[in-house]
Amino acid sequence: MDPGEVVSQHWERMQARDWDGLGELLADDFVVEWPNARLRIRGRENYVGFNRTYPEGWSIELLRIVSAGSTAVSEVRVPHPTVGPYYAVSLFEVEDGRLTRAREYWVEERREEPPAERAHWFEDLDD
Amino acid sequence: MDPGEVVSQHWERMQARDWDGLGELLADDFVVEWPNARLRIRGRENYVGFNRTYPEGWSIELLRIVSAGSTAVSEVRVPHPTVGPYYAVSLFEVEDGRLTRAREYWVEERREEPPAERAHWFEDLDD
Repeated sequence: MDPGEVVSQHWERMQARDWDGLGELLADDFVVEWPNARLRIRGRENYVGFNRTYPEGWSIELLRIVSAGSTAVSEVRVPHPTVGPYYAVSLFEVEDGRLTRAREYWVEERREEPPAERAHWFEDLDD
Repeated sequence: MDPGEVVSQHWERMQARDWDGLGELLADDFVVEWPNARLRIRGRENYVGFNRTYPEGWSIELLRIVSAGSTAVSEVRVPHPTVGPYYAVSLFEVEDGRLTRAREYWVEERREEPPAERAHWFEDLDD
């Protein structure tokens, strides 16, 4: 599988709750960094465990993958009945068909009101 | 300029406050969407104007560009003396050497405390 396909499968297997299948896509020492939250998850077991035990109800909408060399970037939207929805943009590194590292930005979907004096630069995305 | 170089120049000229030079990289009808904030900035003039008038003190740290075909993704960190720092991940489309569209996620750097029962999955990124 090329890097883009590995990342596509990562999200597909997560959506399917195929935790063994997800683990097969990860290097043993896979590390994901969340730069804005200043957190890191280290190792396949922790990454799968974190996701497996996340409070249920979520789904994965894969919006796009941009793949170049050993890097693949994904943009996903994650609706959930009680929180979010969240978006995640993930910059994955792939070696030998497995994910080795990622930097990932999770951000909640929440309509922002620009300050009044700056509102004229903007349109509402939902209009 | 290839798409990655256009995006690199976009950030370089923004850092330099080279507003005319920034405008030269944008299609007239350049549109940036902020999906999580549900906001959109439409047109070169508004995009340059918004950035030109943003309260001063910010700087741009270009962390990485991932370029594939007509798409280039950038990851930047934006320190500011009174807010943030912020990260932005931007998925730009480039045609004929100009930026035509972007989807951009801005998120503040702020240490998150995972819930106690989930903290064991994480490490502190700054340790």
